Amino acid sequence: MKSDDQANLAGNGNPRRKFFKKNTAADPDIDDLYKGILEGDRAKLAKAITLIESNASRHFESAQKLLEKLQSERTDSIRIGISGVPGAGKSTFIEAFGTYLCNTGYRVAVLAVDPSSTLSGGSILGDKTRMEELARNPNAFIRPSPTGGTLGGVHRKTRESITICEAAGFDVILVETVGVGQSEAMVREMVDFFLLLVLTGAGDELQGMKKGIMELADAVLVNKADGSNIPFAEKTRAEYNRILHFIQPATTGWETRAYTCSALTLKGIEEFWHVIKRFREACGASGILQERRNNQLKDWMSSLISEQLTNLFYQNRAIQNLLPAVQKEVTAGIKPAAKAVQELFHYFRDAMKD
Amino acid sequence: MKSDDQANLAGNGNPRRKFFKKNTAADPDIDDLYKGILEGDRAKLAKAITLIESNASRHFESAQKLLEKLQSERTDSIRIGISGVPGAGKSTFIEAFGTYLCNTGYRVAVLAVDPSSTLSGGSILGDKTRMEELARNPNAFIRPSPTGGTLGGVHRKTRESITICEAAGFDVILVETVGVGQSEAMVREMVDFFLLLVLTGAGDELQGMKKGIMELADAVLVNKADGSNIPFAEKTRAEYNRILHFIQPATTGWETRAYTCSALTLKGIEEFWHVIKRFREACGASGILQERRNNQLKDWMSSLISEQLTNLFYQNRAIQNLLPAVQKEVTAGIKPAAKAVQELFHYFRDAMKD
Repeated sequence: MKSDDQANLAGNGNPRRKFFKKNTAADPDIDDLYKGILEGDRAKLAKAITLIESNASRHFESAQKLLEKLQSERTDSIRIGISGVPGAGKSTFIEAFGTYLCNTGYRVAVLAVDPSSTLSGGSILGDKTRMEELARNPNAFIRPSPTGGTLGGVHRKTRESITICEAAGFDVILVETVGVGQSEAMVREMVDFFLLLVLTGAGDELQGMKKGIMELADAVLVNKADGSNIPFAEKTRAEYNRILHFIQPATTGWETRAYTCSALTLKGIEEFWHVIKRFREACGASGILQERRNNQLKDWMSSLISEQLTNLFYQNRAIQNLLPAVQKEVTAGIKPAAKAVQELFHYFRDAMKD
Repeated sequence: MKSDDQANLAGNGNPRRKFFKKNTAADPDIDDLYKGILEGDRAKLAKAITLIESNASRHFESAQKLLEKLQSERTDSIRIGISGVPGAGKSTFIEAFGTYLCNTGYRVAVLAVDPSSTLSGGSILGDKTRMEELARNPNAFIRPSPTGGTLGGVHRKTRESITICEAAGFDVILVETVGVGQSEAMVREMVDFFLLLVLTGAGDELQGMKKGIMELADAVLVNKADGSNIPFAEKTRAEYNRILHFIQPATTGWETRAYTCSALTLKGIEEFWHVIKRFREACGASGILQERRNNQLKDWMSSLISEQLTNLFYQNRAIQNLLPAVQKEVTAGIKPAAKAVQELFHYFRDAMKD
């Protein structure tokens, strides 16, 4: 015969257990979210991304469970990163390009990577009114930049949001980058095709352009090629092509070229989509695209591992107790750094045994 | 009474132990090296650096023991990093500048950081004849680039070589970088003052210059300001000053400026040494220099820790057995990366307990 205590431990009829259950009832129902996403329910999709973006550790398990269910729902999506200096017209371009794609029958998701948003209070895509027309289109889904967390954290959130959007049936994923810090390199690591949007007057602009950016691009698109600006845009396109000639292309077997477009007159928008279709055909057939996605996933795993290792070490109590004194010895010139680190790892290994 | 076996375990009269001892007799005598270095024996100094550069793990302990002994011998040295595009005249400048310093009574050590040397087979400073006059000067010590090892490894070797050279009484440590990959950033992290050597014709050259380099510099020095080239050099200097005006200086409280010199006529060489003396006075008095050295040591410790953590994880047998299958699951879209990493860490923690 069970004692009351045993019954409580087993959780049968324990009033406290009921209380806990009630308290976590606010956590989302994974099956419900999963079903909703597959059915194209945008409210559920938004809720799922909010779950992914949560920094609460209790949400991590649910989020991963949901992702695991969605992983098998592969699509033949295309992921396009969009970068450009401020003023290059990223939002007007996304508005025009996204609307064109939606009206052609594609479903388009717009995500953003803004690692600076923790500092600046968030800027890009924070205001959906920047893309009013696209936001109203039933084929479009616009998600503002995730805020909070480390650089790696932002990366994780955006990557996982891509997975969710693809499972939800979106064909084209546009990932906008604000162009601050390492955001372009981060976005390059999660997309198939990387677009650099530029303005006319390449000479002046190149001065302000981050030097590594051109090497990341699969296309350079000169925006605002309209009205009296058309000859300048053409001249700029030619200048970029001349420079691109000397740069190692970002994708093996694909020649990075410069094109023009106008988000105002829409000239060049459809042609740019044909460039991307050609890219997908060429790089899909050669296996380059699948290889890129595989390598991206491996690299991402490596950075998640690095992050975890760093946490494991610096959050270890023995290390936290020792580190300040050891650092002082090193900076005072009493102990060589390599020896200090060797000693710290001696304690770290010991602490890991507990 | 001891049995023979016990005597063997204690190492008394064990013939195998004698054999091992004989085999390690080639290892350097630390006390002898230490004494030699303090006495200014250049052969001993070179031998000590070879010990530091050794990738053999049995040399690590000896090297660290030597470094620990030398750590207390602090000097008021100045560490100068020297960078510049190929053709900017780094070796002729170092020859001229180093010889000037030696003849003024300073002792000058020249080290090199070339992370590419593992790939390219080693180039910079590989041939001492590049700096024939300086190499013959009794006040100079020239050490070719360390070869082999990871990026972090090259960093470690050069940093520790700096410590040894300072203990050996060298006043000025010149660290040359080949300008490949991340070498400038690596050198910036181990020097007090960073010099960017450039040629005339700033406009053209800026195109080829790595974009982040200007932000690392404490001075830009336009070389080859001689003969008919003088007016161009002056124009280039003015152009660089205009650009530097818009760039955050590398050192708080010190204005990065452009200067001219000629390694041929020696004009500007002495003036440049006065710039460095002013820098040391200003930044020494404000405490910026000591703070920089402390931060450099802390950052270096962090990167050594990262390297060790990565080794600990990827060389763990459990992880080595699991990783390929897990990576396959992730790239096949069966398992989300974050969940896969969580699982790997579960096994890693378990394996660390053994």
